[in-house]
Amino acid sequence: MKINIAQLNVKTLDINTNCSKMLDVLKESDEKTLSIFGEMVLTGYPLYNKNLYDKLYQESALCAEDICKQNKSFIFGTVVKNEDRFFNALVFVDKGEVKELATKRNLNRFDTNFSEGNGFEIINFEGKKIAFGFLDDISNFIKRKIEVDIIVACSNVLFDKQRSEELKEELSLYAKQSKATIVFVNRVGAEGSFIFNGESQIVNEKGERVALLPAFEEKTEYCDALEFLMPLKQLMLPQEEKIYQATIIGIRDYFAKNHINKAVIGLSGGIDSAVVVVLAVKALGKDNVIGILMPSEFSTEHSITDAEQSAINLGIKYYTIPIKDIFQSSLNALKPIFEGTKPGTAEENLQARARCLVVMGVANKIGAAMMNTSNKSESAVGYGTLYGDDSGAIGAIGDLFKTEVYKLANYINKEEEIIPKNSIIKAPSAELHYDQKDSDSLPEYDVLDRILKEYIENHLTKEEIINKGFEKQVVEKVLTLINRNEWKRHQEAPALRLSKSCFTTDFINPIS
Amino acid sequence: MKINIAQLNVKTLDINTNCSKMLDVLKESDEKTLSIFGEMVLTGYPLYNKNLYDKLYQESALCAEDICKQNKSFIFGTVVKNEDRFFNALVFVDKGEVKELATKRNLNRFDTNFSEGNGFEIINFEGKKIAFGFLDDISNFIKRKIEVDIIVACSNVLFDKQRSEELKEELSLYAKQSKATIVFVNRVGAEGSFIFNGESQIVNEKGERVALLPAFEEKTEYCDALEFLMPLKQLMLPQEEKIYQATIIGIRDYFAKNHINKAVIGLSGGIDSAVVVVLAVKALGKDNVIGILMPSEFSTEHSITDAEQSAINLGIKYYTIPIKDIFQSSLNALKPIFEGTKPGTAEENLQARARCLVVMGVANKIGAAMMNTSNKSESAVGYGTLYGDDSGAIGAIGDLFKTEVYKLANYINKEEEIIPKNSIIKAPSAELHYDQKDSDSLPEYDVLDRILKEYIENHLTKEEIINKGFEKQVVEKVLTLINRNEWKRHQEAPALRLSKSCFTTDFINPIS
Repeated sequence: MKINIAQLNVKTLDINTNCSKMLDVLKESDEKTLSIFGEMVLTGYPLYNKNLYDKLYQESALCAEDICKQNKSFIFGTVVKNEDRFFNALVFVDKGEVKELATKRNLNRFDTNFSEGNGFEIINFEGKKIAFGFLDDISNFIKRKIEVDIIVACSNVLFDKQRSEELKEELSLYAKQSKATIVFVNRVGAEGSFIFNGESQIVNEKGERVALLPAFEEKTEYCDALEFLMPLKQLMLPQEEKIYQATIIGIRDYFAKNHINKAVIGLSGGIDSAVVVVLAVKALGKDNVIGILMPSEFSTEHSITDAEQSAINLGIKYYTIPIKDIFQSSLNALKPIFEGTKPGTAEENLQARARCLVVMGVANKIGAAMMNTSNKSESAVGYGTLYGDDSGAIGAIGDLFKTEVYKLANYINKEEEIIPKNSIIKAPSAELHYDQKDSDSLPEYDVLDRILKEYIENHLTKEEIINKGFEKQVVEKVLTLINRNEWKRHQEAPALRLSKSCFTTDFINPIS
Repeated sequence: MKINIAQLNVKTLDINTNCSKMLDVLKESDEKTLSIFGEMVLTGYPLYNKNLYDKLYQESALCAEDICKQNKSFIFGTVVKNEDRFFNALVFVDKGEVKELATKRNLNRFDTNFSEGNGFEIINFEGKKIAFGFLDDISNFIKRKIEVDIIVACSNVLFDKQRSEELKEELSLYAKQSKATIVFVNRVGAEGSFIFNGESQIVNEKGERVALLPAFEEKTEYCDALEFLMPLKQLMLPQEEKIYQATIIGIRDYFAKNHINKAVIGLSGGIDSAVVVVLAVKALGKDNVIGILMPSEFSTEHSITDAEQSAINLGIKYYTIPIKDIFQSSLNALKPIFEGTKPGTAEENLQARARCLVVMGVANKIGAAMMNTSNKSESAVGYGTLYGDDSGAIGAIGDLFKTEVYKLANYINKEEEIIPKNSIIKAPSAELHYDQKDSDSLPEYDVLDRILKEYIENHLTKEEIINKGFEKQVVEKVLTLINRNEWKRHQEAPALRLSKSCFTTDFINPIS
């Protein structure tokens, strides 16, 4: 039986665009082929706002009528309505006729406005018995022990750095349990912080993966679901390659979906901004990325030359705008309050905020957005300035610990020196006072990140972390900082979600 | 049968403090009294982070042992664990002995880390048959048609401007359906954006309210649940009084729970900052609030005198810090990019950001937090500057439309002129260019707010709003602005939630 997997990057709320993408796919398929689209392919996903559902339902019903005129057979996701209740549904269309609906039963965090549906349904197509529904409901279906030839599972599965491997295992297990071939269809692309990686696939009844669509790429692929497919001997992409591609599609889609073309980035000569500017250039093109160097009296010589080198290596336009005068006039203005006090965090933050003012000035003037360059280690412990370096439209590396940023930097540089080597090897510093280093006020990043991972990713308690051999005092300090800085994280740039413990989307603490 | 309702403002994660509050309550109660505490009284609520559950469970179990030694009878909420699964539970302790557990079944948005429990349970106390459980599960219990004398429903119910009336109706209906007396126990106080209003109450089997604890106040009240109680003939608090008290407790708890004493507010002479400074003074005391006047070349004379008057009326300390030099040095610094362009939004935003830099400079220097003064109408249409006036630790009026801010201002002034009259009557202006008025780029606020309410609160579609008699062009413009500015709202100060459609906590759009 021939199937046609359509792994699309749909536009949320733009039914016409999504509809014409679907028509393009169907044009290529013959009447013996079952085309399979993803969850909510017609409407986009996630939707959040229930206001939109009624209108979307009506519009999508009209579009679906149009698509049915093609006289093709396919499964596609959309919103359906029944007596004032909305369902997240998959529709089976058999040669132009709507034959069956599968509605999602196990609702997830994006489905809060939907009512609980019925789960999987069974259909017949070209002599095969097919169960179709959402991946969220597959284990309930398998428990019912209904024999089928093929299970079609469509779900928009969020990317995180472990998800591909986990999903491979899960699908293999499901296939073996059900003794059926599983066709899994995912979407691709990003929506704000959330990235969908694609990697739609077919797993045979032995649990072997026999077809795999690419990650982070829109793709339609024809194959025979049940015959002649050999198990794939595929190496997994390296972790860094996945993160690299995920952040690029994340940035690209954020800008495209918000109708912004250009990005402005403050280049400090440090590793964080050096990595973000590479990702932005890769996502948006070098002509759409502008670097701003903003030296202060505390900037070291190398921070300026490293930042310049970074811009030169990428061939982007850059400006050097010293912040000395803005800083000085702020200090003058604040004299009534600052006079006679010891310079400290307040003065340091003024510099970070002066830089934000400059970058946003450029961004507003040319209709661009500011890229945020904070990493997850900084966010965790509040090492950053609100309305200063914590700002920006989207945080490309905000869900990567500092040590992960280093790994990504080295990966980017594996063939040529795109990121200036000096940005990678020098000691990290915010350069907000003379000879400052991050390690003056924080543990070294390799220690800090291991503690953070145990707490944030592995959910260990304070005692369990100390028992792993970390100093009690250091662990207590780090955990206190995490808890104290929740209110700051609520106002930082949203980060692209690359893990299951991304701040503000997944890892949320009480504000207190 | 005597009961003792303990409506507490608990501290999230601070089990010792909560435990000693409980002991204080129990000290006053005799052995024939059933004391009733709220949901998660021992641990605080909401918890969010699942990391904490195991530790909280262990600590709270130890505390519960202590409390049981008192040999008293009571119902209290805490986290319980069963085979690696956590439940949101109410525990019935009978004369020092744990006798029954009711676990929450209908989980809400704050319960995502809990497993589904069993709902209501039945106990006997002093010859009465009592059902106890969470308000979330009460309708399921009533459907089971089990006859009881009393239903005890404990749930932390979020405040919004309609919730008191709705809850009164709901409880009355439940009482009549079940033919039982209902004792409802709520918590009081705020957690970040979320406010709990208290108003614990008893409703007799005829559906009449016979006891009511105050709103926004910690209180313990003894009464006989079944005898001699007369229906209350109570007038509802005016809407503005509820909002006034809610914002005050919201600010007070935000500061207290984040261990911050002082607030800094930029005073523009406009109505928004004039209202927020009153609320802050009421919440934190006049010695803990500092006003900053930051005139620019576009400030009118009255904006300075109105802002001064506002500070003088409240008796707070204030500073006048002109932003002219910071603005000018920013313009100079940005000359390479700005030269030859027409002054516009970029220049306007520079001023708003210079003001943020000044207010945050003061806040950082004295260890204070910046109050945000944005209203919901501005947030809706993106009329504000990110990292400028959109900043601040907490938005006191961020969930009030501009017209609601006017109502609140008039309510505050009902007995004396606390807010300068001129701040209320003059035309709203951001004063970022010469003779600017908000109505230059927005519809008048009475029109704007009605459109916003229809869309955001009443969930009408574009067509339905136009059919209500609004101009098509205006409606389209407003709805487009709402959708375009979602990315900005993700980075604005969190607002105190006062409605069911608060941005970022309730009303969320796709970013696109």
